[in-house]
Amino acid sequence: MRSAADGQSGKETSRIESFSDNVFAIALTLLVLTIKVPSVPEGNHSGYLLEQLALQWPEYLTYVISFVTILLVWIKHHMMFERVQKADHALMFLNGMLLLPVTLVPFPTSLLALFIVHPQARYAAALFTGSFAMIVGMVYLVWKHITRLNGRLGIVEDEVWLDRQSRKIRIVFFLYVAAFGLTFVYPLVGIGTCFLLVIYLALPELKNVDG
Amino acid sequence: MRSAADGQSGKETSRIESFSDNVFAIALTLLVLTIKVPSVPEGNHSGYLLEQLALQWPEYLTYVISFVTILLVWIKHHMMFERVQKADHALMFLNGMLLLPVTLVPFPTSLLALFIVHPQARYAAALFTGSFAMIVGMVYLVWKHITRLNGRLGIVEDEVWLDRQSRKIRIVFFLYVAAFGLTFVYPLVGIGTCFLLVIYLALPELKNVDG
Amino acid sequence: MRSAADGQSGKETSRIESFSDNVFAIALTLLVLTIKVPSVPEGNHSGYLLEQLALQWPEYLTYVISFVTILLVWIKHHMMFERVQKADHALMFLNGMLLLPVTLVPFPTSLLALFIVHPQARYAAALFTGSFAMIVGMVYLVWKHITRLNGRLGIVEDEVWLDRQSRKIRIVFFLYVAAFGLTFVYPLVGIGTCFLLVIYLALPELKNVDG
Amino acid sequence: MRSAADGQSGKETSRIESFSDNVFAIALTLLVLTIKVPSVPEGNHSGYLLEQLALQWPEYLTYVISFVTILLVWIKHHMMFERVQKADHALMFLNGMLLLPVTLVPFPTSLLALFIVHPQARYAAALFTGSFAMIVGMVYLVWKHITRLNGRLGIVEDEVWLDRQSRKIRIVFFLYVAAFGLTFVYPLVGIGTCFLLVIYLALPELKNVDG
Repeated sequence: MRSAADGQSGKETSRIESFSDNVFAIALTLLVLTIKVPSVPEGNHSGYLLEQLALQWPEYLTYVISFVTILLVWIKHHMMFERVQKADHALMFLNGMLLLPVTLVPFPTSLLALFIVHPQARYAAALFTGSFAMIVGMVYLVWKHITRLNGRLGIVEDEVWLDRQSRKIRIVFFLYVAAFGLTFVYPLVGIGTCFLLVIYLALPELKNVDG
Repeated sequence: MRSAADGQSGKETSRIESFSDNVFAIALTLLVLTIKVPSVPEGNHSGYLLEQLALQWPEYLTYVISFVTILLVWIKHHMMFERVQKADHALMFLNGMLLLPVTLVPFPTSLLALFIVHPQARYAAALFTGSFAMIVGMVYLVWKHITRLNGRLGIVEDEVWLDRQSRKIRIVFFLYVAAFGLTFVYPLVGIGTCFLLVIYLALPELKNVDG
Repeated sequence: MRSAADGQSGKETSRIESFSDNVFAIALTLLVLTIKVPSVPEGNHSGYLLEQLALQWPEYLTYVISFVTILLVWIKHHMMFERVQKADHALMFLNGMLLLPVTLVPFPTSLLALFIVHPQARYAAALFTGSFAMIVGMVYLVWKHITRLNGRLGIVEDEVWLDRQSRKIRIVFFLYVAAFGLTFVYPLVGIGTCFLLVIYLALPELKNVDG
Repeated sequence: MRSAADGQSGKETSRIESFSDNVFAIALTLLVLTIKVPSVPEGNHSGYLLEQLALQWPEYLTYVISFVTILLVWIKHHMMFERVQKADHALMFLNGMLLLPVTLVPFPTSLLALFIVHPQARYAAALFTGSFAMIVGMVYLVWKHITRLNGRLGIVEDEVWLDRQSRKIRIVFFLYVAAFGLTFVYPLVGIGTCFLLVIYLALPELKNVDG
């Protein structure tokens, strides 16, 4: 009986994880559709293609920021679900609400790539940073729910460790909200904050590369 | 021999589940392609981008309805397949026929976003609600087949619980058919019904969030 | 040692299966992009949208044929891989070459939907039926490789059953090649053959639905 | 305790593998979007469709090269991860950075298909071969990290075998860099090198097909 129940929970969790992995993977891969292929010119203006590719720098920049952000959220998601012993419907639904802004990412990514040098860049930049803030906010809600569910099962957790994780996610959330706020005043500073945040969050992942 | 057969069945079921998870995940994520990126204007009409984004409300609304509907169907699908001990080819095929209208969802979603304020909105609204009715109808057929297969294997089920589940799915099906019928007379009321249905169906999933 | 090796093989096989499931699922879901959303008309020509949707019948027809064909190939793929005890690189590569025409399906599907009523429909129809013939041909090669690999491992198989399976796949292959040939003379007859084949192949999957 | 820890590691590894499988599968399948459907002509210029399809040879050629290259990288990825006993965050991140150029492949594939016969083909060809060089370079970094992680766990490996694998990947990397360099002088020779490399790398996978 015991082991059957365990198997059941394992199945539950693994379907949420594999479903989420799929969504993260597809959102990442659809980003390539935000990079437009330049059209073939009429004449042969020398250097045309190189120029066109160079003019696409906003598409490359936003591609990389969005890709690495989704990748980091996926790694965090992975870390969170390692602690899940039992899934309930609320977790499935909350997790789905975390995936909603993840699937949206290609839209603000395209939008920002198109409007980054436009006088009205602020709205595109706000949507871009805002969607990341939403994702991190949902990560926090999912994490709170996981720790609560876990607690109810009577598993003794390192409370200090759990609190530190929660605080970390809260801080990252506030930094993204700050980036979001900044975009309304200085759009490029807001995006720059987003870019630095991605580097800052990626660094610890790399600390073992040379170990 | 016994355990080998079990392993086999486990494998069968898990491939149907993982295949379905993929299809649900991709259908969800492709919805982002229904949100069009506004083009860059010639001059600098102040407030242009904000206005364009605001004008896209039908795309956001239909996006959210379609996303949450597919998510809820996935949760229900998950619940149904937890009961599957053995899969047969008929289940694989029926499940595929449930996935067909799921993969179609981005089409009526785009269509409704484009025509919601158009005098001929009714046909777009009918296709939108109709495709959800089809999905729920197929969910019912898959569920009936699962309970029948399960029964044949001689596993004692809580018959009352099973009947209640079947009745629930039938009721939701009739509500979607009603929404579908309404769209021909009052398109917006039909879509509103769809929207309320999504909220109504999502609520029970959330009852444990604050537990 | 023994069980570790089994685990290894299980892992090998399951990654091929899950990779293939992904490809089948994505190819299926991308088919929705072959259905174009009609544009909003200038004036309000009454009945416009219904007319436009009705004119899209070739897109619906080719969508359903392609969807069900890929679904049936996936079910067959599933059946074949149930027999795989050991995967080698050749199987991974051959399986990849089976997936190549599967990923191509959205292209001939779009093409045929666009040209089915055009005087030059034959080339679109040939590509459509031809890509299915290629898929079934690759299914045969993968199946032959699987039965050979299986044999080498010394597992006693029901040789009669295996031969019947091989013969079945060969017959379906020749029927698709016949449909392909027909499209050059009578395009619609070739497509009709394809449609009947799909129904004929789907029927046995359904024999247990009412069991 | 021991076995629980093993299970944990297994879970870690399997999520990286399944996430990567998804990304490879989606990148492969999105390639079909690089093949454009010819538009319906006004009049009935006899032979129009056949001519249009024939003119698309660059799209078919680049499709096949990109598809088979991603497939081969996936097979190599699979081989590498068979050796992973333990995953860390650095591996998850490095693996993500390997997936980044994989997800980009549809872009240079479209670009090259459009510009292959254009006087400025060299830049498209450089991006095409360069993205494969980047992928192989990342494969090398991931492989180095895997062997290092593995070593730290005290598992005795056939050092000669490991070194041969590393050398093989380094050689393939230098060949892709050479192809990349060539594209700036003779674009078609660079692409030809890429094509020959794909065939050369696929051959050993096929050595068991007739076994």
